[in-house]
Amino acid sequence: MRIALGQFDAHVGDLAGNVEKMRSMYEQAVKQNVDLLVFPELAVCGYPPEDLLIKRHFIEDNLLAVEKLAKSCPDITIVVGYPGLLDGRIYNCAAVLKNGKIEDVYRKGLLPNFGVFDEQRYFKAGDEPVMINIKGVNVAITICLDIWDSNWLKDFLADCNPIHMILNISASPFHVGKIQKRLSAITQCAQKFNAALCYCNNVGGQDELIFDGRSAIADSTGKIRCLAGAFEEELLIADLNLSGENNLDIQQVSPVSSQPAGDIEEVYKALVLGTRDYTRKNGFKKILLGVSGGIDSALVTSIAVAALGPENVIGITMPTRFNSAETISDATKLAENLGIEFYNIAIEKIVQQFHSSLKSIPGWDDKGTAYENLQARIRGTLLMSLSNQFGALVLTSGNKSETAVGYATLYGDTAGGFAVIKDIPKTLVYKLAEFVNSTREKPVIPKDILTRPPTAELREDQKDTDSLPDYDMLDEILKGYVEQDKSAKQLIESSFPKEVVRKVITLVDRNEYKRRQSPPGIKITPKAFGKDRRLPITNRYCSFNNEP
Amino acid sequence: MRIALGQFDAHVGDLAGNVEKMRSMYEQAVKQNVDLLVFPELAVCGYPPEDLLIKRHFIEDNLLAVEKLAKSCPDITIVVGYPGLLDGRIYNCAAVLKNGKIEDVYRKGLLPNFGVFDEQRYFKAGDEPVMINIKGVNVAITICLDIWDSNWLKDFLADCNPIHMILNISASPFHVGKIQKRLSAITQCAQKFNAALCYCNNVGGQDELIFDGRSAIADSTGKIRCLAGAFEEELLIADLNLSGENNLDIQQVSPVSSQPAGDIEEVYKALVLGTRDYTRKNGFKKILLGVSGGIDSALVTSIAVAALGPENVIGITMPTRFNSAETISDATKLAENLGIEFYNIAIEKIVQQFHSSLKSIPGWDDKGTAYENLQARIRGTLLMSLSNQFGALVLTSGNKSETAVGYATLYGDTAGGFAVIKDIPKTLVYKLAEFVNSTREKPVIPKDILTRPPTAELREDQKDTDSLPDYDMLDEILKGYVEQDKSAKQLIESSFPKEVVRKVITLVDRNEYKRRQSPPGIKITPKAFGKDRRLPITNRYCSFNNEP
Repeated sequence: MRIALGQFDAHVGDLAGNVEKMRSMYEQAVKQNVDLLVFPELAVCGYPPEDLLIKRHFIEDNLLAVEKLAKSCPDITIVVGYPGLLDGRIYNCAAVLKNGKIEDVYRKGLLPNFGVFDEQRYFKAGDEPVMINIKGVNVAITICLDIWDSNWLKDFLADCNPIHMILNISASPFHVGKIQKRLSAITQCAQKFNAALCYCNNVGGQDELIFDGRSAIADSTGKIRCLAGAFEEELLIADLNLSGENNLDIQQVSPVSSQPAGDIEEVYKALVLGTRDYTRKNGFKKILLGVSGGIDSALVTSIAVAALGPENVIGITMPTRFNSAETISDATKLAENLGIEFYNIAIEKIVQQFHSSLKSIPGWDDKGTAYENLQARIRGTLLMSLSNQFGALVLTSGNKSETAVGYATLYGDTAGGFAVIKDIPKTLVYKLAEFVNSTREKPVIPKDILTRPPTAELREDQKDTDSLPDYDMLDEILKGYVEQDKSAKQLIESSFPKEVVRKVITLVDRNEYKRRQSPPGIKITPKAFGKDRRLPITNRYCSFNNEP
Repeated sequence: MRIALGQFDAHVGDLAGNVEKMRSMYEQAVKQNVDLLVFPELAVCGYPPEDLLIKRHFIEDNLLAVEKLAKSCPDITIVVGYPGLLDGRIYNCAAVLKNGKIEDVYRKGLLPNFGVFDEQRYFKAGDEPVMINIKGVNVAITICLDIWDSNWLKDFLADCNPIHMILNISASPFHVGKIQKRLSAITQCAQKFNAALCYCNNVGGQDELIFDGRSAIADSTGKIRCLAGAFEEELLIADLNLSGENNLDIQQVSPVSSQPAGDIEEVYKALVLGTRDYTRKNGFKKILLGVSGGIDSALVTSIAVAALGPENVIGITMPTRFNSAETISDATKLAENLGIEFYNIAIEKIVQQFHSSLKSIPGWDDKGTAYENLQARIRGTLLMSLSNQFGALVLTSGNKSETAVGYATLYGDTAGGFAVIKDIPKTLVYKLAEFVNSTREKPVIPKDILTRPPTAELREDQKDTDSLPDYDMLDEILKGYVEQDKSAKQLIESSFPKEVVRKVITLVDRNEYKRRQSPPGIKITPKAFGKDRRLPITNRYCSFNNEP
């Protein structure tokens, strides 16, 4: 039996486009004599469709799309994900298409409702297994979370015997370390059933989420025998033939894809894919961003160029008297190295004009936070004006450390459509910048940018460390507080200074309102700001009331 | 048996403060010889605590708070809501406090996971009824949604006999028409059990949500016998005494509260409460807002004054050459009528300065959307500068109609901390403005503001109707599309012109990105933008592909 796992970028809401993509993979599969062609979870509508699922006409349109796919692909058995209706309730379904028709429907049993997932908002859980037989191979169909609890699955499939292969269609989002967890879940499940496991994942960027593909096939000992490419579409083809003792002999047919060399390359590829997909799927051709001469915007500019090509990236530097000659010159060098369109708009006169209009208001002065933020908001306004004029998407350059503690100006440096490195802690920003340079013969990010102490340049001689702890410590505290939900007590007990912990936690809590109005960005950690972490703005809880 | 329903404003996260408020209601109850004192769902931590529930130390702190409440209130049986742990899982609990200790715990059986609710993200469903007996009266404890499915509840409580009274603690958010639905659920449940029903609701504003109180007592025929005040804290006291046939005779002890006269007054009170609570609970004393001379900002200014007093409201008008003398004069009159601090900052010179800085960029011009948005963003920047300087909360004035179709400038008129009328359709804005005037001897909102055709005044002779359909029709289409999830086909079949439907739907879909970065605002309709309606930004679904 020959199987093909059609790992493709299902665009949310683009039912016709997704069907067309699947039909074109079907044509390749026919040429290769495939018996069973598999597409990801909710491949017909993309994942996650969120509240589109509440629109009844959306569900009806999905059924029409599945029927159209069945009709246009009659010669191979296909398993494909879609949201389907039964007795007035919506299920997360896998349709089995055969001879131009929907032959059977499996309904997902375990519905994730944690982290970025809200499936119990939409779906009822299914309670009936579906088995198909392809050339003598008995296949149990499952969807995503179903295989992550192999004890549950063993009970669920208790009456299905023999099972030669578990088929799983997924839309499993990326974060650093997820691939290890995922492969380990696959291995464990294959071992539990002493059966092969074929796993077909979604790929592509969807708002905050990246789906990394890496569809896989494990043999009945749990060993991963085939692994599709990361962050790209691919048709993974393999032969699965029954040998003695009901086990399947597995042979990969399509060429083996290369895999990212490590975490840094993995994150870099996720950021490039996420930026490209957000831009293109939202109808933009060009990107616009502020280039300050600092490390964050240098990294984001490099990612933008990798995602869309230098011809589609416009950099703007907007100095005041607080910007040093060095940073302006570094911004210019970076733009030259990357070969992007680049403009310098000095904003000193605009700052002065605001100041003269505001000085009539009692209490206004040109020192302090208000005046610093003003500069950032003028830059945001300029970028948005140019965005409106040119129809270009504005990228922001705030990293996770700044986003966490609110070291950013709302409607200033947070102004833009997409926050590429929103989930990248500052310490990882440096590693990614070094990685970018390592991929080129000649470094594109000037060395000074990598070595200069971080500064917002909103007043004379400002340094980030005037307001914040060292990033090494800050990032460790943030990991504990934001990603691991540790209390102040736990953090202090694990040796961070009490005053620093208090300060950081207070800043994180107090700046929820800024994050709520910030653009979406790419999730690469186990817990990102966004759908992953839903805290009230109005919130008086303080975890150091009970500290040691 | 004397019961007291302690309807109070539980501040999210303020465990100590909430316990203190309950202790002070307990003191009143002791004086009035109350036997059973009841507080709302999750009263210890406020509702909804969202992802605070994922922090294990938060759950531990809640238990400490409940124990503290029990200790300080030993003389009355108390039922109070809190999140509690059992065997490593979190439940939405009602603790029964008696003699200084937690005597029993009921765990909520039905967990809402729709609309604004995400309870299945946090809680496991309980499966055991809890009955208490107070002076011979058998009471079945329930939490919120439990009573909304009386068939489920009948099964759940099948072994509990006799039940004289169903007690329900709730955190049931307000929208127009909700009180009728809620009272009808109470009536139906009381009738189903042939038992009295005592219902204690939360009150107060929490981010997007308003809890309207109106705790209630129904007799065993389902008749509502007591109804607590709307949008205010209250201790509702009643005597429930067993008469023949196991029924309870009900006598209200505390004075009867007045109720809002109709929908408009109800919405107005919700907006005032929501504005006051968001401002105060987030630590602000003063409010700042742009006053344009238009109807939206006139309404929001009036609400701000009602919420915080004229001495805490600062209005700023920021005219360009496109603002008529009439609107500037109306803005001034409004400020005078309301008695607020008021400043006029002309922005023409700032606009000109931006223009001279931008004209070096190829393609920039001073006509079209970019230039219009620039004016709005300069205003946003000025308001935020003053907000930074004075520590005042900026209110925005965008209504639901504008928010839906994106008739607003991101980081311009959407810049601010709280969007008071975000869920108020334009047609309702007028009714509310008239209501405001009707409550005063002399109208505060100048008549011209009510009669002038709506305009953004961002170019010469601009009218809203240049870009949008009439608001009467627009609001009807939006109600169908946004609140009722109708398809283009359904809207066209219900007689709206095809081209208008297409245009409106396209605008709503395309502007999800703006709404995502807009401030939170008060929900008053069955479906508001925010937690209630979660659509992807990247989304190619178009419901008029299959239109007739």
